[in-house]
Amino acid sequence: MPPRISARREPGSFTLADVAAAVGGRIRGPATLTLNGVATLDTAGASDLSWVADERRAAEAGRSRAGALLVSSESLAAGRPCVVVDRPQLALAGWLEVFRPRRPRRAGVARGAFVDRTARLGPGVAVAAGATVEAGARIGARSFLAPGAFVGENASIGEDCVLHPNAAVLASCRIGARCILHPGAVVGSDGFGYVWDGSGHRKVPQVGTVRVEDDVEIGANSAIDRATLGETVVGRGTKIDNLVQIGHNVVIGDHSLICGQAGIGGSSRIGRGVTLAGQVGISDHVTIGDGAVLTGQAGIARQGRVEAGAVLSGMPALPHREFLRRAALLGRLEKALERLAKLERTLREG
Amino acid sequence: MPPRISARREPGSFTLADVAAAVGGRIRGPATLTLNGVATLDTAGASDLSWVADERRAAEAGRSRAGALLVSSESLAAGRPCVVVDRPQLALAGWLEVFRPRRPRRAGVARGAFVDRTARLGPGVAVAAGATVEAGARIGARSFLAPGAFVGENASIGEDCVLHPNAAVLASCRIGARCILHPGAVVGSDGFGYVWDGSGHRKVPQVGTVRVEDDVEIGANSAIDRATLGETVVGRGTKIDNLVQIGHNVVIGDHSLICGQAGIGGSSRIGRGVTLAGQVGISDHVTIGDGAVLTGQAGIARQGRVEAGAVLSGMPALPHREFLRRAALLGRLEKALERLAKLERTLREG
Amino acid sequence: MPPRISARREPGSFTLADVAAAVGGRIRGPATLTLNGVATLDTAGASDLSWVADERRAAEAGRSRAGALLVSSESLAAGRPCVVVDRPQLALAGWLEVFRPRRPRRAGVARGAFVDRTARLGPGVAVAAGATVEAGARIGARSFLAPGAFVGENASIGEDCVLHPNAAVLASCRIGARCILHPGAVVGSDGFGYVWDGSGHRKVPQVGTVRVEDDVEIGANSAIDRATLGETVVGRGTKIDNLVQIGHNVVIGDHSLICGQAGIGGSSRIGRGVTLAGQVGISDHVTIGDGAVLTGQAGIARQGRVEAGAVLSGMPALPHREFLRRAALLGRLEKALERLAKLERTLREG
Repeated sequence: MPPRISARREPGSFTLADVAAAVGGRIRGPATLTLNGVATLDTAGASDLSWVADERRAAEAGRSRAGALLVSSESLAAGRPCVVVDRPQLALAGWLEVFRPRRPRRAGVARGAFVDRTARLGPGVAVAAGATVEAGARIGARSFLAPGAFVGENASIGEDCVLHPNAAVLASCRIGARCILHPGAVVGSDGFGYVWDGSGHRKVPQVGTVRVEDDVEIGANSAIDRATLGETVVGRGTKIDNLVQIGHNVVIGDHSLICGQAGIGGSSRIGRGVTLAGQVGISDHVTIGDGAVLTGQAGIARQGRVEAGAVLSGMPALPHREFLRRAALLGRLEKALERLAKLERTLREG
Repeated sequence: MPPRISARREPGSFTLADVAAAVGGRIRGPATLTLNGVATLDTAGASDLSWVADERRAAEAGRSRAGALLVSSESLAAGRPCVVVDRPQLALAGWLEVFRPRRPRRAGVARGAFVDRTARLGPGVAVAAGATVEAGARIGARSFLAPGAFVGENASIGEDCVLHPNAAVLASCRIGARCILHPGAVVGSDGFGYVWDGSGHRKVPQVGTVRVEDDVEIGANSAIDRATLGETVVGRGTKIDNLVQIGHNVVIGDHSLICGQAGIGGSSRIGRGVTLAGQVGISDHVTIGDGAVLTGQAGIARQGRVEAGAVLSGMPALPHREFLRRAALLGRLEKALERLAKLERTLREG
Repeated sequence: MPPRISARREPGSFTLADVAAAVGGRIRGPATLTLNGVATLDTAGASDLSWVADERRAAEAGRSRAGALLVSSESLAAGRPCVVVDRPQLALAGWLEVFRPRRPRRAGVARGAFVDRTARLGPGVAVAAGATVEAGARIGARSFLAPGAFVGENASIGEDCVLHPNAAVLASCRIGARCILHPGAVVGSDGFGYVWDGSGHRKVPQVGTVRVEDDVEIGANSAIDRATLGETVVGRGTKIDNLVQIGHNVVIGDHSLICGQAGIGGSSRIGRGVTLAGQVGISDHVTIGDGAVLTGQAGIARQGRVEAGAVLSGMPALPHREFLRRAALLGRLEKALERLAKLERTLREG
């Protein structure tokens, strides 16, 4: 059997005091209580720390076997040892960073890596065997390129980035600091641009680039096309899930969330703090206002506009409440048609 | 011209007796009849074996030029030489395994492969040039890693697995026996988990793993995220098609079929023997009962529940018959509105 | 700062006469006018060439700061220097090919590439470090394989192709001339074919291949499955966007456009000149006639048929106009139900 590496069975143990110090909370219970794992409420055991995200989880917390809890109020701990913090989920994130720190990579270019001699690598950069850095590319300090990762000619990667296996940043594209590209993510593939020349679709050379700003994550096997001219842009702090497609010349604002399998057509503008849920489809030349939310599988047609803060569902997309109302109305349609026929009969016969 | 390798033109020939022996069927016709290919009813020629999946194909079988047929009843062969078996499609699968056996890979670590010296490889393992096996990883007997395949630290791969080019199993994830990961498949990418910290989306470290049980296939460029804590699980015998997204902490039961471009949001539970057709979207925290079927593009909203055995369509999803009935009712809506207006006029005009 | 490589800041300058000569147009204004970039109407500056795609862009052209324009009629240039051509967008494509020519690759097999000695490479082929060419494979003249690209046993690649990083063509598949496979594209993954054997889904060996004809592009992380028997076919000049899934035994005609995240189920037949917009879902055994258009997220159920030239939307798909009409009718449904109830009251009380 391979060693089972899970948070629950981590050999390293810690005390409630360690947790409180790391997340800045107040201890209720024995500070020296020793734990050795972190787990969800339903799977935690006596030696695990768990957390109560909010008051809706109170009943679940009561049933949990967790040895200690991160809570926003002592009352939610149901008498158990706890650490009280303003935001338990944020504290959890902080504690996990301490408890399971990212393993430092050994700096240097591994034997079997392909790094052009005109590439410039910052201090502490690690390039694994099987990774490629082409001519003129720059890799910022402490960034890590896993096996199969690719950085094309004159592309640049900021500091403290991770390119997971087979992630690719093509020629001349730029990635900011602290970005994570998950396995198979592609930045800088050609936009889908053709013009009919009378006998075939002639390719419009895609000579622009992609600019990914700081603190962006790009999910596994997602693809972001380079601009035809100019730049495709992903704003600072935006998080992109797996299998997302982002077309040429799209501009996404800061701190947006683009969930799995969503797609954004060419030249669309997505605001700040937007949420596109799973499988959302945004056509070409669409504008989405700041803070808008599109629920799963919603679709916006070409040149559509979504107001800031709107919450839309369905295809064609409607305000979410209207979407729900229509679904309910449709459930009444069959009976309504029967009632209509009955009225007609009454009048005819009446 | 490169050699055209197709079943139809395979140089190796075989007799009807060979087929009957391999699939356990009864010969009707000359046992020594010699054939050299396998093809569908409409493309087969006189030297090809074909098969009649069921009685609905009887007419097509009658028109076919196939030299011989796998059939469930002699009457379906329309007088042609045949091998009678209970289940012709199953027999076809069996015969193809004999006719076109998986080429054995030459065991050993190729020059140009990157295998950490602390990795443990079982007997008969083959690692191609350009594949990577990191520290502490285990590869079961007779498994094959193609170029660009990646097995991360402390991950484990069972016996008789195939990792096709650029398939990646990240740190600490576990793959069972006889699994196939198609090109670009990713197991163990980070879940999409963040918490707003007042100025940005703070990453919740994803410290769990993925457990893929025996006899699972994962399609090209599909992605399965590791759990935030604990495990994401894909049950025994489940088959996953291309470009599928499976979120963190999802649990899928045994023998389910997840078709192309379907997506499953975080923490959802999918039962045994479930079928998700192409582009189905399952949101977060959904429960799908055993044997349920979701037809193409169906969507289930957050925290939704689908009963065991249900067949659902559309978004929001409805029982399939209800979905079809509503579509039909909608086709009557325009006329119904006209009839309503006419009734109003009649009443007004007295 | 890394050098910013964008069309707008290209150091190489050119004159209006250069443009006119390259695209075959008539100069209006100073032939010696010197420019150094190409940009869209809204981003172009005084030293940039831009283009007016059609008359709907006249107002935008009037506001543009571009130094010169490609136009279909002098009047659209609003007094600015221009080159008059029949089709400005086509001229733009032509000029970009001249202005930003594809960099020639240095022929040869790089150290660190894995090329089987039985593979045959045409003159001028370039294979980068980390790319693989297996036994019996053929690579046509002047084709380029980027790092991580994979060509399996007995597969063949035509002349003048580009396989971007981690693109994979599996065993025995055939790619025509002048094809481009974007990063992570997969050709020849197994079809999703199983038959229940009483205790599990038994794999039907996928022994067919894929034939991709000349001048095809396949987008980043798209996947095309090999046929169960026979061939999956992508016709000449067809362009496939990112994250597209094409099932086993699909046949696509010439010059079709398959947009991002569209999916095509097994054995479907797609005609010539068809457009599948983003996230379209085509089920198994569907037939789509020549020139048909499916708008974004449209879905066609199993064994469906779409007439040549039809324009369909929605799921289940309807003629586009009918789809729009139904959406409008639905907006009237709530009021209609109220009117129906009022009529009933009137009659009851009347």
